[in-house]
Amino acid sequence: MMLTEDQLPAGFRFAGVPCGIKASGRPDLTLIVADRPVVAAGVFTTNQIVAAPVLLCKARTPSASVRAVVVNSGNANACTGKQGEADAYQMTQWVAEQIGAPADAVLVMSTGIIGHALPMDKVRQGIAEAHAQLAATPSGFAAAADAILTTDKARKVSAKNVTIGDQTYRICGMAKGAGMIAPNMATMLAAVLTDAPLAPEDAQSLLATAADGSFNRVSVDGHTSTNDTLLLLAQASPQPLAGDDLETFRAALHAMCVELAKQLPADGEGAKHVLQLSVTGAVNDNDAEVIARAVGASPLVKTAITGGDPNWGRIVSAAGYAGPPIMVSQTSLSILGTTVFAQGQPVPFDAAALSRAMQAAPFVEVALVVGDGPGKTDFWASDLTTHYVEFNSLYTT
Amino acid sequence: MMLTEDQLPAGFRFAGVPCGIKASGRPDLTLIVADRPVVAAGVFTTNQIVAAPVLLCKARTPSASVRAVVVNSGNANACTGKQGEADAYQMTQWVAEQIGAPADAVLVMSTGIIGHALPMDKVRQGIAEAHAQLAATPSGFAAAADAILTTDKARKVSAKNVTIGDQTYRICGMAKGAGMIAPNMATMLAAVLTDAPLAPEDAQSLLATAADGSFNRVSVDGHTSTNDTLLLLAQASPQPLAGDDLETFRAALHAMCVELAKQLPADGEGAKHVLQLSVTGAVNDNDAEVIARAVGASPLVKTAITGGDPNWGRIVSAAGYAGPPIMVSQTSLSILGTTVFAQGQPVPFDAAALSRAMQAAPFVEVALVVGDGPGKTDFWASDLTTHYVEFNSLYTT
Repeated sequence: MMLTEDQLPAGFRFAGVPCGIKASGRPDLTLIVADRPVVAAGVFTTNQIVAAPVLLCKARTPSASVRAVVVNSGNANACTGKQGEADAYQMTQWVAEQIGAPADAVLVMSTGIIGHALPMDKVRQGIAEAHAQLAATPSGFAAAADAILTTDKARKVSAKNVTIGDQTYRICGMAKGAGMIAPNMATMLAAVLTDAPLAPEDAQSLLATAADGSFNRVSVDGHTSTNDTLLLLAQASPQPLAGDDLETFRAALHAMCVELAKQLPADGEGAKHVLQLSVTGAVNDNDAEVIARAVGASPLVKTAITGGDPNWGRIVSAAGYAGPPIMVSQTSLSILGTTVFAQGQPVPFDAAALSRAMQAAPFVEVALVVGDGPGKTDFWASDLTTHYVEFNSLYTT
Repeated sequence: MMLTEDQLPAGFRFAGVPCGIKASGRPDLTLIVADRPVVAAGVFTTNQIVAAPVLLCKARTPSASVRAVVVNSGNANACTGKQGEADAYQMTQWVAEQIGAPADAVLVMSTGIIGHALPMDKVRQGIAEAHAQLAATPSGFAAAADAILTTDKARKVSAKNVTIGDQTYRICGMAKGAGMIAPNMATMLAAVLTDAPLAPEDAQSLLATAADGSFNRVSVDGHTSTNDTLLLLAQASPQPLAGDDLETFRAALHAMCVELAKQLPADGEGAKHVLQLSVTGAVNDNDAEVIARAVGASPLVKTAITGGDPNWGRIVSAAGYAGPPIMVSQTSLSILGTTVFAQGQPVPFDAAALSRAMQAAPFVEVALVVGDGPGKTDFWASDLTTHYVEFNSLYTT
């Protein structure tokens, strides 16, 4: 997918280049530069093992004076000790020198293998090369979005324009997914850009809400990474959006984040289908989320989705061990609109027809009712294929 | 594995027969009959979706007047509503008629597909046939142990003799494993028999402790079943074991349960290796267990074990998202005795040599230190292979 000129927020330039971190020679260094200082907000992994670039970004957001984001793929700079922290700082310093800004106006993200020191000579050359190629064009944005990918098969971008009063603002985002994806408070590397004016504290609050309903509701493998980072860059202004205007923007941002987040499980390592799960009737939204996460993480549920097998006992039993209370006598389940279990009792259905429908659906919609409470959530999880296992057991460190 | 005459507790007879529940024609009905009323204790699944036979056993244990246990495989009698409850009761009634005992002196266990009504005509014939074949012999015990299996490749039995004073008691057990295995307070169908005299309340307490350190520490797929049941049958006596004698027996029971439980992940669906994980240094034992369970459930960790890949970042990062607090600067990891991460810093090691050792080891020992606390646990988890995915995605309901 390629964005159009009209979908790119004003005031940003982009580049993505190969600098040799990846042995494959594929692009692995991205640079996003704002023409003027912008507002930046971030949400980050809740993993206690936190990569060096995450520590750095946490310290520098929210902010109203960010000028650039540098991203490398192929190496996560995680579990790399003091050297890793120095390397993350050095990356921002080199970018700052190139664009003539203070080092603390630059943010950094890394993704890839854990536990290896970054090849800093290559990173330095990559930053210089990317700086030379910066462009405020769709192809520049695409190059930037490509160079943050690791095992992803497809570029992950999304955009939404929102008109507030007589002004149209642009929101666009890029993300990487594929593996070690079960974000909790953020996702594995995503950047959202807008030319809308936002106050830093509003940017932070809007981003946290949007992440919670989008990136925090997808899972490939249930494995929350050490590097999850979602950044929002917005225009700094003495008249930021407020009141109803801010709410209009919030809805647009949220919709764009859902659109972007769903691309992660769809391109999960080896994934053929996405389980699109709705859980309703829980005691509260948090309980619904815990149940959805348990269902979406079960290898038995995932392989049933892989095989187009309407084996609903696997789904219902996963809800039963998830932890939050459920009302068994009010538990019901439908798959692609076909009811298979209602009020705690099995319901006869045409298994062969439903199996064919499941095999044909890229997104297999499952609606699970667990009681009569108000708690609900949507969740998207990759299925589990032999390709996933082959890829991750043959992957050599 | 076949037990010897000397390993069978006195006072029990066994049979296992095919009665047609399984389409394959393999044995699917087991009967264990005590010559006199025995003490019975049970621990059961914590899944909120509870199969009918579990409800029945919960109501009838602990007890000092149990005469028989009937088990069917091929159908879990779970999510089967009121009909399922009536069927479970009927199974105990038929056994009671055969042996001349009250119905409530009989316990029942079921395992297999969820959501289908039992073929009760076949079950009735199976019970009569098994009753006719009851024998207090090793081959009778083996037949009983075989007829509780589902997708298991190997019979799972274990035995331990313990001498207390001038008396030698026998403890033996049978279990089924393979799939939907992440027991929580019990495992998917296991029965432990002894001719030692135990008070019912002691039997219950000993069994709960033994389950916690054995069956509750293994996982194939992280999916806690609706049917998990572990039963202990012991001799009823006015002079049950007490004091030091009871402690001696407890240790023997515990060791036998660990031996039996380890056979589950080793024969997990498609499993090639078992991750044998020790977690130490946690704040308390419960935290250690939560961390071990997260590591053992991660598909990224499991596939690394499958491939013999010493990708330790996957293990350390799973500990980081598990939830309980860890001390990153005191976190260390060794694989098969080779230290790869120490005090929060990567340690150089010979990756090729370690990979070869991992590939050759049926049990891959991983020692994870997460701080300086007293909390610790052992845990055994299957790896994740393409055979697991093929089996569970091609399995047709």
